[in-house]
Amino acid sequence: MNRIDWPYPTPGIPDHYFSRGQVPMTKEEIRVLTLAKARLGSGMIVYDIGSGTGSLAVEAARLVAPGEVLAVEVNPEACALVRENARRFGLKNVRVITGMAPAALEGLPPPDRAFIGGSGGHLEGILAACHQTLRPGGIIVLNAITVETLGTALAWGYRRGYQVEALAVNLARLEPAGRYHIWRALNPVYIVQLMTQRRHDE
Amino acid sequence: MNRIDWPYPTPGIPDHYFSRGQVPMTKEEIRVLTLAKARLGSGMIVYDIGSGTGSLAVEAARLVAPGEVLAVEVNPEACALVRENARRFGLKNVRVITGMAPAALEGLPPPDRAFIGGSGGHLEGILAACHQTLRPGGIIVLNAITVETLGTALAWGYRRGYQVEALAVNLARLEPAGRYHIWRALNPVYIVQLMTQRRHDE
Amino acid sequence: MNRIDWPYPTPGIPDHYFSRGQVPMTKEEIRVLTLAKARLGSGMIVYDIGSGTGSLAVEAARLVAPGEVLAVEVNPEACALVRENARRFGLKNVRVITGMAPAALEGLPPPDRAFIGGSGGHLEGILAACHQTLRPGGIIVLNAITVETLGTALAWGYRRGYQVEALAVNLARLEPAGRYHIWRALNPVYIVQLMTQRRHDE
Amino acid sequence: MNRIDWPYPTPGIPDHYFSRGQVPMTKEEIRVLTLAKARLGSGMIVYDIGSGTGSLAVEAARLVAPGEVLAVEVNPEACALVRENARRFGLKNVRVITGMAPAALEGLPPPDRAFIGGSGGHLEGILAACHQTLRPGGIIVLNAITVETLGTALAWGYRRGYQVEALAVNLARLEPAGRYHIWRALNPVYIVQLMTQRRHDE
Repeated sequence: MNRIDWPYPTPGIPDHYFSRGQVPMTKEEIRVLTLAKARLGSGMIVYDIGSGTGSLAVEAARLVAPGEVLAVEVNPEACALVRENARRFGLKNVRVITGMAPAALEGLPPPDRAFIGGSGGHLEGILAACHQTLRPGGIIVLNAITVETLGTALAWGYRRGYQVEALAVNLARLEPAGRYHIWRALNPVYIVQLMTQRRHDE
Repeated sequence: MNRIDWPYPTPGIPDHYFSRGQVPMTKEEIRVLTLAKARLGSGMIVYDIGSGTGSLAVEAARLVAPGEVLAVEVNPEACALVRENARRFGLKNVRVITGMAPAALEGLPPPDRAFIGGSGGHLEGILAACHQTLRPGGIIVLNAITVETLGTALAWGYRRGYQVEALAVNLARLEPAGRYHIWRALNPVYIVQLMTQRRHDE
Repeated sequence: MNRIDWPYPTPGIPDHYFSRGQVPMTKEEIRVLTLAKARLGSGMIVYDIGSGTGSLAVEAARLVAPGEVLAVEVNPEACALVRENARRFGLKNVRVITGMAPAALEGLPPPDRAFIGGSGGHLEGILAACHQTLRPGGIIVLNAITVETLGTALAWGYRRGYQVEALAVNLARLEPAGRYHIWRALNPVYIVQLMTQRRHDE
Repeated sequence: MNRIDWPYPTPGIPDHYFSRGQVPMTKEEIRVLTLAKARLGSGMIVYDIGSGTGSLAVEAARLVAPGEVLAVEVNPEACALVRENARRFGLKNVRVITGMAPAALEGLPPPDRAFIGGSGGHLEGILAACHQTLRPGGIIVLNAITVETLGTALAWGYRRGYQVEALAVNLARLEPAGRYHIWRALNPVYIVQLMTQRRHDE
């Protein structure tokens, strides 16, 4: 495992800089958009629920230091990857919580931001748990690849009075094909932003 | 014109925070992806060619301070908007160069990064001018909405030995429609990244 | 109103061949995909629920003659457009039923195929009504632009034992912009196909 | 090889009904849109250049009978597949021309329609050959997956005075993922329509 020096304040670390094994990873461009929708700031406490490889946790940890990212992940292989990737980028502020949300969230410090990347079928419970402890002005950002998760997240957000915004993201990356170049599609992803209060200028 | 305090280090200032008049603006999500592909860093000199409303210049200026963004724009209405938007976000490091690239680039300090958002039909000349003065390790990021601009940029990049990556971006934003929600599509945009050297780990 | 001779057996009549007023129209390419998913055949009875301008009804009527298309539409302006567009293409086998589905479906002959383009908030009732009278081997094809309609249609289809397939369609049309060409996005549409039985080869 | 009875006049035969081996196939939905843009009619002579598995040739042959589809294909494995797929659907009006276009086009009867699915790097030569023999009112429809093919086709079409239309197609198919459903993206495809004359109503 070689240490990586990524000196740029802009998010968007290329996918291949992360160890990933067989664990699903939030792709670079989706990560960038997800981080933007979370409006991170220095000193924040961030949940990363369903952390996978930890690529999002790593990027968030760089942006919120000396704040902390609490990476909640049930799969032990993934937990090891989160730790490895945090070390690779020299980060001390990623704490791995091995366990299944929402149960694993109990006793954690209240978050300023919560990312939900995977919910293991407990999305409503996870949202409810985040809602209970989310700090004033807090934001929940959810990445959904299923129609059902999108539907649940939107319905929940409206019901609870959040300001709801969402994006459907269809991206394709250029790839050489002989002398020519084709587009290789990434699977569609939905990004849902749930904000606890109206923005001050609206 | 009210001053806006946007305290987050993550890019992604909402579109409606900018004054825009009739001038085309790089949409929030495209801006975020474009900034990521540029890998900005503190102290950098950044060209923003075809600056439009200056939304990209404003976001870049926040990220490279005490570096500087040189916003090159031929349309006087747009130049005024760039200045207004820079003031609105309290930025002193956006310099507006009124004129047509590539001619207007003469005499400017060599850039670390160059954004090309509009080329007024002089794309090859602009690319050549950037190429001549781009600092070692420099990156050019181009937003193309036309098929022709995409083709020219890719062919130019390969011919000059750049490492070329590109994205086709199809986004849609959720929008209320009565009790339901539809997706409102943004027009497709291509983001082309031209890097002067192989990444160290490849 | 001039009569149009469209001599091709392939679906895909250009949008501007239809009278449309202020009524929403299923765009040419969405129409083509929707008709394909319905697997129309000569002699079939077809419901077109939420017919709008009748563009889908017109294309279907050409393909199923001497079968019949029953265009169910509550908006009187739209009903007039359906009739006008049917006349324009010389079709005698489009019958307009003015009324709100599912109530308006009562007493109609059982369908081989049902298109649902608009449901006025009564999607479950419409699906149930179609389900009750749909002939063996029948197919329901639904165009959804809202997240909620998509979710309801999928859940309903699975619950009732249909073979469910669906497409998310993101299209953009080339458009001149000076000497260049941009892509103009159509809003995303979901096409849901509900088939009453397994295909014989599966 | 079992004979398939596909009784529907609408195009859109599912992909898995075709034998395909390792040969690239035009996917069902792209085929449907491509056929629509060609405006096929009974009795037409159709070129299918770069026929691949012949899925497009098969669908076109059904629609133009007693016309004929001339499937031009250089890969012997693909030629065998075209023949097999034509037999599978009981079609006598698909003629396979083994060879490389444009050379292989010499001596063929002039076409009413030409599909170009693959060009082996000879796109301009193929377009020129089609142009020379295309019948009055003829239409060329091209499927491009590369940026370069798209650019060449558009530039050629405009230069030769064709009426040019094009689509960028981003589709995703619903796929089960446990109890939920994700979208599986197809790679982006461009469909270019080149028409020899203005439509009569414009």
